[in-house]
Amino acid sequence: MNILFIGDVVGKPGRTALKEHLPNLKKEYKADLTIVNGENAAHGKGLTKPIYHNFLEWGADMITMGNHTFDKKEIFDFIDDADRIVRPANYPTGTPGIGMRFMNIHDKVVAVINIQGRTFLPPLDDPFQVIDTLIEKAKKRTSIIFVDFHAEATSEKQAFGWYLDGRVSCVVGTHTHVQTSDERILPKGTAFITDVGMTGPYDSVIGTEIESVIRRFRTSLPVRFEVPETNRTVLSGVIVSVEESTGIAKRIKRILINDDHIKFS
Amino acid sequence: MNILFIGDVVGKPGRTALKEHLPNLKKEYKADLTIVNGENAAHGKGLTKPIYHNFLEWGADMITMGNHTFDKKEIFDFIDDADRIVRPANYPTGTPGIGMRFMNIHDKVVAVINIQGRTFLPPLDDPFQVIDTLIEKAKKRTSIIFVDFHAEATSEKQAFGWYLDGRVSCVVGTHTHVQTSDERILPKGTAFITDVGMTGPYDSVIGTEIESVIRRFRTSLPVRFEVPETNRTVLSGVIVSVEESTGIAKRIKRILINDDHIKFS
Amino acid sequence: MNILFIGDVVGKPGRTALKEHLPNLKKEYKADLTIVNGENAAHGKGLTKPIYHNFLEWGADMITMGNHTFDKKEIFDFIDDADRIVRPANYPTGTPGIGMRFMNIHDKVVAVINIQGRTFLPPLDDPFQVIDTLIEKAKKRTSIIFVDFHAEATSEKQAFGWYLDGRVSCVVGTHTHVQTSDERILPKGTAFITDVGMTGPYDSVIGTEIESVIRRFRTSLPVRFEVPETNRTVLSGVIVSVEESTGIAKRIKRILINDDHIKFS
Amino acid sequence: MNILFIGDVVGKPGRTALKEHLPNLKKEYKADLTIVNGENAAHGKGLTKPIYHNFLEWGADMITMGNHTFDKKEIFDFIDDADRIVRPANYPTGTPGIGMRFMNIHDKVVAVINIQGRTFLPPLDDPFQVIDTLIEKAKKRTSIIFVDFHAEATSEKQAFGWYLDGRVSCVVGTHTHVQTSDERILPKGTAFITDVGMTGPYDSVIGTEIESVIRRFRTSLPVRFEVPETNRTVLSGVIVSVEESTGIAKRIKRILINDDHIKFS
Ligand SMILES: [Fe+2]
Ligand SMILES: [Fe+2]
Ligand SMILES: [Fe+2]
Ligand SMILES: [Fe+2]
Ligand SMILES: [Fe+2]
Ligand SMILES: [Fe+2]
Ligand SMILES: [Fe+2]
Ligand SMILES: [Fe+2]
Repeated sequence: MNILFIGDVVGKPGRTALKEHLPNLKKEYKADLTIVNGENAAHGKGLTKPIYHNFLEWGADMITMGNHTFDKKEIFDFIDDADRIVRPANYPTGTPGIGMRFMNIHDKVVAVINIQGRTFLPPLDDPFQVIDTLIEKAKKRTSIIFVDFHAEATSEKQAFGWYLDGRVSCVVGTHTHVQTSDERILPKGTAFITDVGMTGPYDSVIGTEIESVIRRFRTSLPVRFEVPETNRTVLSGVIVSVEESTGIAKRIKRILINDDHIKFS
Repeated sequence: MNILFIGDVVGKPGRTALKEHLPNLKKEYKADLTIVNGENAAHGKGLTKPIYHNFLEWGADMITMGNHTFDKKEIFDFIDDADRIVRPANYPTGTPGIGMRFMNIHDKVVAVINIQGRTFLPPLDDPFQVIDTLIEKAKKRTSIIFVDFHAEATSEKQAFGWYLDGRVSCVVGTHTHVQTSDERILPKGTAFITDVGMTGPYDSVIGTEIESVIRRFRTSLPVRFEVPETNRTVLSGVIVSVEESTGIAKRIKRILINDDHIKFS
Repeated sequence: MNILFIGDVVGKPGRTALKEHLPNLKKEYKADLTIVNGENAAHGKGLTKPIYHNFLEWGADMITMGNHTFDKKEIFDFIDDADRIVRPANYPTGTPGIGMRFMNIHDKVVAVINIQGRTFLPPLDDPFQVIDTLIEKAKKRTSIIFVDFHAEATSEKQAFGWYLDGRVSCVVGTHTHVQTSDERILPKGTAFITDVGMTGPYDSVIGTEIESVIRRFRTSLPVRFEVPETNRTVLSGVIVSVEESTGIAKRIKRILINDDHIKFS
Repeated sequence: MNILFIGDVVGKPGRTALKEHLPNLKKEYKADLTIVNGENAAHGKGLTKPIYHNFLEWGADMITMGNHTFDKKEIFDFIDDADRIVRPANYPTGTPGIGMRFMNIHDKVVAVINIQGRTFLPPLDDPFQVIDTLIEKAKKRTSIIFVDFHAEATSEKQAFGWYLDGRVSCVVGTHTHVQTSDERILPKGTAFITDVGMTGPYDSVIGTEIESVIRRFRTSLPVRFEVPETNRTVLSGVIVSVEESTGIAKRIKRILINDDHIKFS
């Protein structure tokens, strides 16, 4: 089974890039399952219902989220009915939405999990504790488990990957919006990458208009951040091949498409 | 002029990898100048005098540092006489060592700068202010300026790169210990990469023994971190080609060598 | 000379308490100079021009600020002409407003300084460096120097107090919105208190409506914070007596007025 | 029932002050139960077995801890057998020690809870979730519940106090090492203070030798922190009177003793 994952789609440029490239990527990589991180899809912060439906139309099967999940208030109106969204599983009990969903792909069940780190981020429940519970639950139905670990610190992300090695099919990091080149199959068969990177404006500071970010760092004054309007986009993703019978990952390749060139790992 | 930069060398495995690969890399890439980040060279924290001299013997021309510069106390004894070390330039006035050094390479002067970010790191002087002063000073002697920006947050690093575009030859990020795949030449001619990645043990959490890091995250108890002893190493670097007459970068390529394979961008 | 200082005035309840109590306090304590922290005066964040003028009408001679200085955009329109406002002096060069002002009180010159800490707060310029420069400048005109150190961490605030002992008349902490009971005259004659506390709604979480803050901690969801409307207020301040000829502080007393009782140290 | 609580005892000066004053304080305030925070008792970090026994000899009935609980390794050898120690209850499951203990005082059962905040501190389990479970458990045996909330941020501490109002007898804050003057009985009968303050060297930065802390802030270099040796001490505490039949607090008074004077709220 080939799982295609696209990193944090940021604003309109990100949506444009997704719409343009997703059909080709799915075909080229023979993707059986397509997962897209959508936490920044609406103006860089959060997700709206129309955008959610756009993502499904364009070919996404599941949307993962992150620390921006609830930035657009309207998500409270539809997240509980949206059976293709997973938000970080370690939000406290009672939070709208859910952190793990199962899908049927060619008569196989796949579990998709979204979970968030705590280093340099707000203190949710312990992801190491929560993931143990989720895996135990998932294993009753499948050994194909995909994890989007939304976290900032490279140490927490790599520790999480090693912690899950051999227990899940794949751990992809998201949130820093910059793709790392350390994709690998860990010794016990889990595909891992520290960060998939973002999908959005190419000439930007991790998706945000450049001058405003520089002004913020230089002045420490309040600055309004916008996603720049541009046709120069970048799309970041990975394609992971998983052995269906065991859930073991056999291959992970990076995808990076921008105006200059297309790169693969 | 070709500038070879090797990211944070971590402990003995990092030194072993450096010694093994550096001569070949210098030859292969026709390196005119070789810069190595050494902030983690001694047991993962700091630098000793023997290791400093080893680095020079093995082919380094200049050593950059970071937030671990002063972790080994003996550095206070030799940093002021070590004309091949630059430590973050934005430490407060009066700090031992210096943040910018000039070297002569084939009758050309090159300025090498080390400077540190402040997001998720201790509050040094403003790197955006300090770099302006350094560039002004450097420009009197050369237009070939190499900057190692030691920082955590991807936003601060990319903002710094864009801020310096067209004013320096190259901005390489260090500190996260994970190589990013976003190397590029910015529109005005500055080579940039968010993080070069580290040189050290391949099976580790950013250079540290895996189980101890996982234990720390899972227990929140005090844990002693060690660099694992291993022959499985990773070396991370970039090679940057700079036009000598203008200081403009023409090309940046990533280097990533580990036990499995050698990768280039 | 008696200097009356009132801690962070928060929203309408804070302004109501200030207007009600300030005339009496000035009379009771024979205040020669009255300083009020106004960083939270407008709806809990920032300061408007009408409120600034209200403060002066009600008896304030100088307004100090903090990390919320620029939260109301209109401050950019009047801060440079407002000769009774000092904002944190360690904002970067070029920031609107000024960090030290001189006033004439009974033929004596007093310097009033506002400066901000960096622990758990955004990284401004080093307050320890900046204060040295300001004191040197102030000493040319007066030895009566009042410092509002706007900071979070008790360690940074006490270190700052000891650092300035004997060099300024008084260091009062602000920002945590909770009065500390550690007011004292340090050995070389500087009056010190870690935090003066806030002036605002008594039944609140440091000035903010209770339920919304609890909801934020319990859910980690975005929550809109408001200053509650209430007549139950608290006013927090200190009165410092300074020897005019030397600038040495002789006495510091806390003031805490709420609906239940009035307390003095 | 009168409950005497003494804030974070720091190193030898703190122990000296405790030994000297505790017998008198217990007598003066007719203390039925004496609780002492001991997280900094051994050289400023952690607790040893001899010091633990000293505290009991000198009159403590229960020792609460905090983020320094496990800094002295030997605590792992005795914490599970030490029936008079409570460590933060929201450490992850499996952590040595326990977070709530019951004591019999005059035929009444009292529950003593230690729990830690997460703002500006490492991410333990959610204290708001954990305390609900503990209170439910405690209520089966008693309505007299004492909570030491070890936390940094004033907002988190006050939110916690209001959250528990009417459900526990008392919430005292610890950790900042500076006593606040906001002690009060909340509307539904819970005694509250944001921070009790520390017991240790009077001329110090929250218990640490002054010059070293200033040096750290000024240089950002590694600095070794020591508790200064001195006879000038400060003792910080509160005395809380609780109605035994209901668990409702009727009175809370601050205690602050230093070389200059004794102060009460
Ligand atoms: Fe994102
Ligand atoms: Fe994110
Ligand atoms: Fe490093
Ligand atoms: Fe570093
Ligand atoms: Fe404030
Ligand atoms: Fe503030
Ligand atoms: Fe403490
Ligand atoms: Fe503590």
